[in-house]
Amino acid sequence: MPRRSAAEALVRVRLAGICDTDLQLAAGYMGFRGVLGHEFVGQVVECDDRSWLHARVVADINAACGACDACARGDRHHCPSRTVLGIAGRDGCLAEYTLVPEPCLVRVPDAVSDDAAAFAEPLAAALHVVDCLPPGAGDILVLGDGKLGLLTAMAVHAGGRNVKLVGHHESKLAIARAAGVDTALREDRDGWWPAVVEATGHPMGLADALRACRPRGTIVLKTTVAAPAAVDLSPVVIHELQIVGSRCGDLELAVRSLATGAIDPAALIEARYPLQQADRALQHAQRKGALKIVVEVEPRA
Amino acid sequence: MPRRSAAEALVRVRLAGICDTDLQLAAGYMGFRGVLGHEFVGQVVECDDRSWLHARVVADINAACGACDACARGDRHHCPSRTVLGIAGRDGCLAEYTLVPEPCLVRVPDAVSDDAAAFAEPLAAALHVVDCLPPGAGDILVLGDGKLGLLTAMAVHAGGRNVKLVGHHESKLAIARAAGVDTALREDRDGWWPAVVEATGHPMGLADALRACRPRGTIVLKTTVAAPAAVDLSPVVIHELQIVGSRCGDLELAVRSLATGAIDPAALIEARYPLQQADRALQHAQRKGALKIVVEVEPRA
Repeated sequence: MPRRSAAEALVRVRLAGICDTDLQLAAGYMGFRGVLGHEFVGQVVECDDRSWLHARVVADINAACGACDACARGDRHHCPSRTVLGIAGRDGCLAEYTLVPEPCLVRVPDAVSDDAAAFAEPLAAALHVVDCLPPGAGDILVLGDGKLGLLTAMAVHAGGRNVKLVGHHESKLAIARAAGVDTALREDRDGWWPAVVEATGHPMGLADALRACRPRGTIVLKTTVAAPAAVDLSPVVIHELQIVGSRCGDLELAVRSLATGAIDPAALIEARYPLQQADRALQHAQRKGALKIVVEVEPRA
Repeated sequence: MPRRSAAEALVRVRLAGICDTDLQLAAGYMGFRGVLGHEFVGQVVECDDRSWLHARVVADINAACGACDACARGDRHHCPSRTVLGIAGRDGCLAEYTLVPEPCLVRVPDAVSDDAAAFAEPLAAALHVVDCLPPGAGDILVLGDGKLGLLTAMAVHAGGRNVKLVGHHESKLAIARAAGVDTALREDRDGWWPAVVEATGHPMGLADALRACRPRGTIVLKTTVAAPAAVDLSPVVIHELQIVGSRCGDLELAVRSLATGAIDPAALIEARYPLQQADRALQHAQRKGALKIVVEVEPRA
């Protein structure tokens, strides 16, 4: 049982999702040691601010210091002394209980199922892509039909932008199509797209994005890979492209999008495992092309 | 003697500069074959628009088609069918005579010397860096004390921004210091700079820029290198950085900056060769750390 500090909530985890970052961390990325997991929905069982008690919650995974220059700029996601749930300096949520600083908690309305709420964190990241696009950027190409690419395409589409998702798996593309997204197995309009989202999870995905993007266009980079990619960056200079990195987003916005039903990510769930089989869940998540694997900490009602 | 097409000016070259791109082209970059050279000042000796006759001129090196989507957007620098003086599909200016489309010509006022005017093209590129920086980006770090880094630091400084130039050569940094630029042999404020200009000309310069830039900061990428660099781009995502490629700039703006004396790049000239010794000039330009080598086509008065 984790021991709570002041202004931390003890949360009983209900459902947790496995992210590719968990797999990379398990393989040694960033030298993390501790409890993995940063996607969850749970219930507050102990806290200082009593208004949170028994609340069903998700959480911003970045726990900022609140005192540094970045925090003073309102940029808590980039606080240099932040801890990050299950990623850096803080145990995660693939467990019965997890600790979350109270300022990171976000309440989940009854209208949002546990299945949907477990996607709040990756959906927030997907929605943040929209913030990274220049206003009026026009049509948007999303590369990659993994979990991140699917969620991003659905989020951009729900935001009212024209989006095309390109991936290699017909069955995955079908999930995005069911949400109204235009999809294709390949994209031939090299140098045409005013904005491209690189969500392939592959080190060479950036090369495809550079090829697809039109001069002075914007590429939103979502993929983090442990290995440096030998990508020819001269097109960035020659075509005066803009590459914008995008990481975490606004959990409250994500929960609102789930509550209105604008985005329903539950179709991305491929398999469920009880917490006792978390190792099998991780193995399943490592299968090539696996979609979202969730771990049920409380048995489903 | 090159043969003029309609709306092209025949220019008698007076002075031409050698750029690192010329050295890369000579080594096979982009498969260019023809007359090298894209930095010059010369005199119009034949033209269709008689107002240009005998004018002392420099030129925008991008010759656009004027008919495509990019041209319709006013983005002539990114016309996909453009030719580029001495770089792509068009002979350059390391010659007695060169051909320039009349819309590319820019008049040089008497107040600007040939030595200064020969820098109009690279200075325009340096000034364009300022356009790529977000407004109010604050202090700017320029990496690289080669020709491009020096010109860029001088241009950013002349634009009234706080700039620090970091390079490895005390003698080169002294040129920027004489122009009022703060300089240093190394920079230790990792993750501090809101804006970093990567002008090292080295494939790994981007790694230094990524390290120096603060979260959500901007990196202006100036270096084009033939070889892909194995740079770890995960900081772009983790710190949500923005990388903006920057290539050519506004020749008229550059000429105005030279005319007011706001920027005097003539101190960057390291050696002069007559056109008959252009091969020796290229060899000299290849020496490690060489500054600007110019080729005199007419003897100096």
